[in-house]
Amino acid sequence: MSFFELIKTDHNSKARAGIIHTSHGDILTPIFMPVGTQGTIKAVEHRELLEIGAQIILGNTYHLYLRPGIEILEKFGGLHKFMNWSKPILTDSGGFQIYSLSELRKIREEGVEFKSHIDGSMHFFSPEKVIDIQRSIGSDILMVLDECVGYPAEYNYVKKSVELTTRWAERAFKHFKSTEPIYDHEQFLFGIVQGSVYKDLRKISVSDLVQIDFDGFAVGGLAVGESTEQMYEITDFTTDFLPQNKPRYLMGVGRPENILEAIERGIDMFDCVMPTRNGRNAYLFTSKGVISIKNSQFKEDESPVDDECDCYTCKNFSRAYLRHLFIAKELLALQLASIHNLRFYLNLISEARKMILENRFIEWKKEKVIQISNKLTINKEEIID
Amino acid sequence: MSFFELIKTDHNSKARAGIIHTSHGDILTPIFMPVGTQGTIKAVEHRELLEIGAQIILGNTYHLYLRPGIEILEKFGGLHKFMNWSKPILTDSGGFQIYSLSELRKIREEGVEFKSHIDGSMHFFSPEKVIDIQRSIGSDILMVLDECVGYPAEYNYVKKSVELTTRWAERAFKHFKSTEPIYDHEQFLFGIVQGSVYKDLRKISVSDLVQIDFDGFAVGGLAVGESTEQMYEITDFTTDFLPQNKPRYLMGVGRPENILEAIERGIDMFDCVMPTRNGRNAYLFTSKGVISIKNSQFKEDESPVDDECDCYTCKNFSRAYLRHLFIAKELLALQLASIHNLRFYLNLISEARKMILENRFIEWKKEKVIQISNKLTINKEEIID
Repeated sequence: MSFFELIKTDHNSKARAGIIHTSHGDILTPIFMPVGTQGTIKAVEHRELLEIGAQIILGNTYHLYLRPGIEILEKFGGLHKFMNWSKPILTDSGGFQIYSLSELRKIREEGVEFKSHIDGSMHFFSPEKVIDIQRSIGSDILMVLDECVGYPAEYNYVKKSVELTTRWAERAFKHFKSTEPIYDHEQFLFGIVQGSVYKDLRKISVSDLVQIDFDGFAVGGLAVGESTEQMYEITDFTTDFLPQNKPRYLMGVGRPENILEAIERGIDMFDCVMPTRNGRNAYLFTSKGVISIKNSQFKEDESPVDDECDCYTCKNFSRAYLRHLFIAKELLALQLASIHNLRFYLNLISEARKMILENRFIEWKKEKVIQISNKLTINKEEIID
Repeated sequence: MSFFELIKTDHNSKARAGIIHTSHGDILTPIFMPVGTQGTIKAVEHRELLEIGAQIILGNTYHLYLRPGIEILEKFGGLHKFMNWSKPILTDSGGFQIYSLSELRKIREEGVEFKSHIDGSMHFFSPEKVIDIQRSIGSDILMVLDECVGYPAEYNYVKKSVELTTRWAERAFKHFKSTEPIYDHEQFLFGIVQGSVYKDLRKISVSDLVQIDFDGFAVGGLAVGESTEQMYEITDFTTDFLPQNKPRYLMGVGRPENILEAIERGIDMFDCVMPTRNGRNAYLFTSKGVISIKNSQFKEDESPVDDECDCYTCKNFSRAYLRHLFIAKELLALQLASIHNLRFYLNLISEARKMILENRFIEWKKEKVIQISNKLTINKEEIID
């Protein structure tokens, strides 16, 4: 069986429905992947992830390498066993974290030297080492080491960076092919397209990378500060050059409406900290728009966060109770909000898949984007009591 | 059916097994009550409380009065409905919180004036008002307002305080009897014995209070700084004066071994923040002793926290994973530790009940106390990595 099965392409857009096959089970695409940076989705239990329909979660190579460390992961037989998660795991290469978290970093042809954000110790990642680490982690889907350039970035810098990222991708692929999984399951490798907002550089990046027989391709370096329109345009532009028979992953995106727009532009996989991070900040997604649950307008609100939602939070608790938990700074607030927001994302994307299969995606998306991006909280006050 | 049914008294000690009947269900005693101060047990979901066998939880009058406030609780039909908890709730009167949290307080015959720890606003609690608030909360078991004296305390101060607490208890009882529950379920009122470590004052307090037809009696003002031996001695002394046909509640106690010793001395009900608070500080109770899970000795430990425990944490995760979550400051650590510690307490007390029913309590307790108070963590280091 091939890694990726393209089941259907929408008649009126580039939206696709597919299946990714891994040793840890199938993933129906388009899919949203909850972010479990350090081997846990913040404030959510594993059984709750299964309950809300998570099919694959993310881990982060940079973070897991620093903590708990490769030695411990290997001793346990990989991250799946260490954290007791039996469904697929994708690990980001750590490229983004090195650039966003590490104070000191030095990029050279060989790789990148960086300082741990935890204890200041110096470390070195090469494209090969990042593959080795992900072999030790045992993720189902591995990402190559790339240079993730911020926004805005000089054309000439991005040009050189794209070339380096491609050379790194070649080295990573070669090393991946010359090594074997450590544990008893298959691993797949994705390349990452860079090029900032420059279409000609994106074209160079994607054209070079598709020459390499990666199992899938990610669009990286977006959602880093550029406008939403630029993000959509670059995504649309890039997917035109990607092969139909391999999954496409838009890294770090985004708001629910961004995800629907990117599905229309041919993307299959998404990850973002937004449902959990915003949830922990009392910011909740609903089928009728977004709310800041701390707002005093919810003080006596007996209705659930979202009456169309089937999550534990919505089935059991009122907006007033959830507001009380946030105002009283109770940990349960973070748990209930994270469960709900993740369920909202997973429901939305599974509905999108259904619509693609039924050729109703575009009409549905238009209406949905308007509904879910509605701001339902009356005023901007964050805490009123 | 009477409120309390005494099923069995141990042949070799004052340990008792009983049943408390409430409109929200029965409670098998001895019982440990998880502390849900603000209408939530910190970091634990309601369904998890049911899963670990919680039969009754605590709420706090002082906290709930300040947040979410009586108006909201009444609008929802009481705390059970506001928080969606259908089993029994006991509310502490807030006496302890006024003395421990409130900066400014002024005690007079009429009641106590205090400053909110949240916003500094001034409030006044009288014995009558505290009953009214608990009517609004709708707890199954109400506590009278008392003066909780710290340790050490001057004999003469405690003497006056005990007399005031008794006068307040009389007023509370009278007001309780002259009012009705607001919601559709029965409410029961407990008196609180005070007197610090002075036996003659404890005797006066308990003798006066048992003249009032309370549904149960609490032993208050212990676990406030006196020695463990003093706590046991006062508990033992006090229960001798309490009626057999009413439940006895030792407030705020304590460590697992304290609970077993107090059961031996005739106590039926317990509450303490220790399982949850210590859990959140990586301090875990096990059948073989206590551990600080952050300790580096657990770095590669594949065994569960407690191999005799049946909780979600122990059935699914290793000590190494839990340690990683704590070291990485992940919220899931707090959740898993709280679930385990509460389950440990609830299992222990349910085993104690079984032993009482089988007349094996004393032998079992002796051995158990040695096992569970064992310190299993090799050294005192808190975080080593």
